[in-house]
Amino acid sequence: MKTNETKSIKTFDGHTKYFEHPSDITKTKMKFSVFLPEQKVENAIIWLSGLTCTEDNFITKAGAQRYLKDSNTMIICPDTSPRGLDLPKEHDSYDFGSGAGFYLNAVTEDYKDHYNMYDYIKLEIVSILKNNFNVKNISIMGHSMGGHGALVLGLREKDLFKSVSAFSPIVNPLKSPWGAKVFKGYLGEKMIGAELYDATELIRSGTKREDTIFVDQGKDDEFLEDNLLTENLVKVCKEHDQKLNLKYREGYDHSYFYISSFINEHIEFHLRALES
Amino acid sequence: MKTNETKSIKTFDGHTKYFEHPSDITKTKMKFSVFLPEQKVENAIIWLSGLTCTEDNFITKAGAQRYLKDSNTMIICPDTSPRGLDLPKEHDSYDFGSGAGFYLNAVTEDYKDHYNMYDYIKLEIVSILKNNFNVKNISIMGHSMGGHGALVLGLREKDLFKSVSAFSPIVNPLKSPWGAKVFKGYLGEKMIGAELYDATELIRSGTKREDTIFVDQGKDDEFLEDNLLTENLVKVCKEHDQKLNLKYREGYDHSYFYISSFINEHIEFHLRALES
Repeated sequence: MKTNETKSIKTFDGHTKYFEHPSDITKTKMKFSVFLPEQKVENAIIWLSGLTCTEDNFITKAGAQRYLKDSNTMIICPDTSPRGLDLPKEHDSYDFGSGAGFYLNAVTEDYKDHYNMYDYIKLEIVSILKNNFNVKNISIMGHSMGGHGALVLGLREKDLFKSVSAFSPIVNPLKSPWGAKVFKGYLGEKMIGAELYDATELIRSGTKREDTIFVDQGKDDEFLEDNLLTENLVKVCKEHDQKLNLKYREGYDHSYFYISSFINEHIEFHLRALES
Repeated sequence: MKTNETKSIKTFDGHTKYFEHPSDITKTKMKFSVFLPEQKVENAIIWLSGLTCTEDNFITKAGAQRYLKDSNTMIICPDTSPRGLDLPKEHDSYDFGSGAGFYLNAVTEDYKDHYNMYDYIKLEIVSILKNNFNVKNISIMGHSMGGHGALVLGLREKDLFKSVSAFSPIVNPLKSPWGAKVFKGYLGEKMIGAELYDATELIRSGTKREDTIFVDQGKDDEFLEDNLLTENLVKVCKEHDQKLNLKYREGYDHSYFYISSFINEHIEFHLRALES
């Protein structure tokens, strides 16, 4: 897989790097950032960002490098959608189209040739990790839309990912305004197959992981009530014996200030799984 | 001093906050950010940012909150210039005018009524810390243009600041293209009084601190050779017995990735001075 390194910046004895590459799956140029600790890399964590983000948000704001510097685990942060296109309605709103790929494979005529972020992560990012960075084990986490992506990919591709965690995930998009909008736009008015991109519905229909899923949620998150719907996940996990470690954080919101306050716990969780 | 809190975001058990206030010194609305740890605040560190920055860069990217969370020391990050004006040439380039106040008091006709960032930090920010946040002791640090500001304010107002440190400071602006440009723009063609805003020249003319100044410099910094001129400071400190702890960092550049890698050492340095 051909990737082109565009920037390399020494950080905590290792390197923060930016790459671009032509994607067979989105049929566009795609970008991602990584942090490579000083040691030889053996494992990776995939970070999936939320609505409006690029490959730049997490790597500049979360403070994750500090907690990976002494490990043999890299982190990779893909962009959140194809770029450089001009599809109908693609750039009209923050919660659909560019910056809002939603980690699914589109079927609508306008989007199906490019907006295939589920396969992009599952196939292309994983292939880049294995072939270009010689990674053995992979875990996955994300925030908001990316928390949704981490849960769905982690549930459906359980053998591919050693552990799964999420900050403020959209756990039941079929019941949320954000989910309804993107599912109609990418999957059509009848939203065929939408259950495959909804963590709560996946668990309800019997998909589960043997290990514990770690979910982090600020209690003062402005999107909690309408769009994140955390308690729907709690309920379905109880009903279907999916182990869930849910940490509610009193007073915290949806921002990267919140993520930076607890990213250490998530990295430690994944390092334990990756190194076991 | 009337300040208006515009945002408050829980971070590492404390709060990151944003404020705006009418400034008597710049005669504009000014903005700053702070991090307040959970404990009662007794001390403060002032962070002065570099060219093009606002009150937002350091507080989102440096990862400093983590190292202050268990202390009784807050950090305050002022904006780097007045805003909302339209003075001649003010918005024409990144290294003069808006985002480039250079922590001096202007004398040129166009700028003298507003661009007085030296007094803004020395008088107004210090007054806000003492009166609005009940701070006792204050230290100062900064990056690049802000490293210059920290050194100059720390040398000239030695009783006001308990300790001084800088990342990648412009140590001898009279010898640098950045300095020459701003000194002419703010102080006039003859650059009258420019030595008062040049750390190397201040030390050369006998201004000094009893304590050790801590300077951090990446060896791969693209601005080192032409604009930062670190060795000029080393030389003058030796000649005039100013104690200097200079740490060159192999492979590091001028970015916030570099700052985030070593901000812990600077915060520990200031906490020792503030708590002694």
